[in-house]
Amino acid sequence: MDKINVGIIGLGTVGTGTAKVIIENADVISNKLGCELVVKRAADMDLDRDRGLDFGEGVLTNDANAVITDPDISIIVELIGGTTIAKDFVTEALRNGKHVVTANKALLSIHGREIFALAREKGLTVGFEAAVGGGIPCLKALKEGLSANRIESIYGIINGTANYILTKMTEEGGDFDEVLADASARGYAEADPSNDVDGNDTVHKLALLMDIAYGTVVDLDDIYMEGIRNINPIDIDFAHGFGYVIKLLAVTKLNGDEVEARVHPTMIPGNHPLASVDGVYNAVFINGDVVGSTMYYGHGAGMMATASAVVADVVDIARDIHAKAPNRITPFGWVDSALKDIKIASMDELELPYYLRFLVVDKPGVLSTISGLLGENNISISSVVQPEREEGTLVPLVIVTHTAREKELRSAVSQIEELEVVSGETVILRIEEQLGGTE
Amino acid sequence: MDKINVGIIGLGTVGTGTAKVIIENADVISNKLGCELVVKRAADMDLDRDRGLDFGEGVLTNDANAVITDPDISIIVELIGGTTIAKDFVTEALRNGKHVVTANKALLSIHGREIFALAREKGLTVGFEAAVGGGIPCLKALKEGLSANRIESIYGIINGTANYILTKMTEEGGDFDEVLADASARGYAEADPSNDVDGNDTVHKLALLMDIAYGTVVDLDDIYMEGIRNINPIDIDFAHGFGYVIKLLAVTKLNGDEVEARVHPTMIPGNHPLASVDGVYNAVFINGDVVGSTMYYGHGAGMMATASAVVADVVDIARDIHAKAPNRITPFGWVDSALKDIKIASMDELELPYYLRFLVVDKPGVLSTISGLLGENNISISSVVQPEREEGTLVPLVIVTHTAREKELRSAVSQIEELEVVSGETVILRIEEQLGGTE
Repeated sequence: MDKINVGIIGLGTVGTGTAKVIIENADVISNKLGCELVVKRAADMDLDRDRGLDFGEGVLTNDANAVITDPDISIIVELIGGTTIAKDFVTEALRNGKHVVTANKALLSIHGREIFALAREKGLTVGFEAAVGGGIPCLKALKEGLSANRIESIYGIINGTANYILTKMTEEGGDFDEVLADASARGYAEADPSNDVDGNDTVHKLALLMDIAYGTVVDLDDIYMEGIRNINPIDIDFAHGFGYVIKLLAVTKLNGDEVEARVHPTMIPGNHPLASVDGVYNAVFINGDVVGSTMYYGHGAGMMATASAVVADVVDIARDIHAKAPNRITPFGWVDSALKDIKIASMDELELPYYLRFLVVDKPGVLSTISGLLGENNISISSVVQPEREEGTLVPLVIVTHTAREKELRSAVSQIEELEVVSGETVILRIEEQLGGTE
Repeated sequence: MDKINVGIIGLGTVGTGTAKVIIENADVISNKLGCELVVKRAADMDLDRDRGLDFGEGVLTNDANAVITDPDISIIVELIGGTTIAKDFVTEALRNGKHVVTANKALLSIHGREIFALAREKGLTVGFEAAVGGGIPCLKALKEGLSANRIESIYGIINGTANYILTKMTEEGGDFDEVLADASARGYAEADPSNDVDGNDTVHKLALLMDIAYGTVVDLDDIYMEGIRNINPIDIDFAHGFGYVIKLLAVTKLNGDEVEARVHPTMIPGNHPLASVDGVYNAVFINGDVVGSTMYYGHGAGMMATASAVVADVVDIARDIHAKAPNRITPFGWVDSALKDIKIASMDELELPYYLRFLVVDKPGVLSTISGLLGENNISISSVVQPEREEGTLVPLVIVTHTAREKELRSAVSQIEELEVVSGETVILRIEEQLGGTE
């Protein structure tokens, strides 16, 4: 039986999981692939740790370059993370004629132009299914399963840490800081959680989804980002009262020649399939002009789930090699000549319903003044909640608007915040009502 | 630019949708494929109907054989349905060296052995993504996205008509017959609904899912089938009280060397992602040994959703042709030599919790007698509900059991039905508690 050799750079959690799958599910894989898949070399700085795996003689090394330059290896799996050394290794692997598989969304979303151009030049594939949605084969669905479609919109819950925190806050109450501390203690949040809770990781993943959806290379700076640190249990409760749940959502929508690209906490209808994607689960909800609404759900992270996606990419590339068609499909699924720049819509032009929570002095006329200022800015009100009053004290005033333009909304809020009866900063949350998939 | 020619047999709803996508999304498709995809011929008995499409000169014909034998056509799309003429056309297309794409689950699940063997012999592909889950790229996920996994279980809501009826019965009440009549009036059920509501269609689709999951060709007779005609609103209500919803579920589970294979109405926990798959939506929930739980959701039928899957298959095959690798992947994703027969577990050996509803005379001692007979058959009780009593009248007695063996359960129920205080037939519903995906 033929043999296709794989080299792994980085034997941390996912790297070890990847080796484990290739070794322990060798029978399943070769029965599908028609040839043997072998971990020929695997590099890590720390070779002393027991990984509970029999790699075989001479496989482990602490010299990554020995793996990358091994002439018998066809596919390099990069799982060290980060955007510096990882970039060197990936670039070097491509220069050496190796296909690359990686779970590194930061690397690809920051240095994608360079890396994908090099892969193109060399006629090689870069597989990155594991970079978005962990084990969920959502990129394959977008790239191949929906190939007949113009992608109209994508809504993703694609950061497990943020989703775990919001789920806990929703189910059990508790402030963001408390729940984050608990998540850290359980290993669901990293020592420095900012990449997850401030939205960076979600932005990286959204960029890759957009690259495939539209056939482009998105600049990260073009994606609006807002994290979940300011989500307050009181807003979760008010949301619930209006029939919404709050999720950190990655959103992209095609509007004529422009696309929206944004990551922010979002209120979505409680009966939408995304609303019940809880805890560390992820889901990507995709609307295509032909297929309508589809959703892909599963573990967004973790040793084995991520390894499942990594090995699926390796098997795909191995199939191409085995069939002597190494260029069968490009990394984004679009031919090179079709790649184009796309214009990202300005956030000012965004049109959505909004949830606003003001802190106001409870006295007659306040609601009328505030609603007047909203009206002057073309914003009409859908609902108002004013909890029971103790005249003269500070109380929350919650307003849900009909569809409004973000620029006008921000202008109205600035004017309202200047009122003497309004105290502190207004909470503004965007509402996505029309996600599709429930008609 | 290169050109790959497609022939369509059958311009009914899905056939017309398929032509529409290939013609109207030609730019998207060629930008992904790197060559043009052209509907060169399309055959239908009725050419007078206006399909709202410009097929171009000489494309339409009422002679299917002219399409199948056209030397310039590489891919034949069969969308006439049924298992007789469709079989002849598919077989003939393969004999003529054409790849085949079809949405015909009945054809493939009944004549699969013969058709796939012929495709193998000829080195051709048979694409059938559209046969299961309509537009949802679930077969691709199973075949390619989860290729590193041993598939442990699949739970599918894969018949839109049955799911629409159960959803309406759950949301709005009403008997099966009433709701079915309403579904027919709305075009969600066919004139003869038996294929959908009695489970045949779901069995056909489960067979195809199992073929791919396990690398086998399942015989339809081996799959247990029970439809939804006997579902009563009272059972939906009781289910709700226990925290369950009732869905027509396709189930397969790997148990050692055997697999379970069954289609029946099933109680599932109300908080499971499958529980909120409502109306005409479908979902396939797949557990793999590496990835854990994943779910694929979308429109299970309809003109355009199904066309999306058909054209995705056509694009996949066109990519293979374009890359000169027409045998890159087999129809089930397993190499021929790995295909094997698998043993289907006997329903007698099934072990699940059960929901039982007896109609009993309300008098002292009845519960004790019934629970005694259950106990004698090794069945222990988890919950009992006995609605308010009017001594001497017939009342429902609902019992939910702990995990029991189906054979012992059936034997206990037979004994109970012989009691004088028990009237009519017992309602027995299986409960799936451990679907995965909510931990």
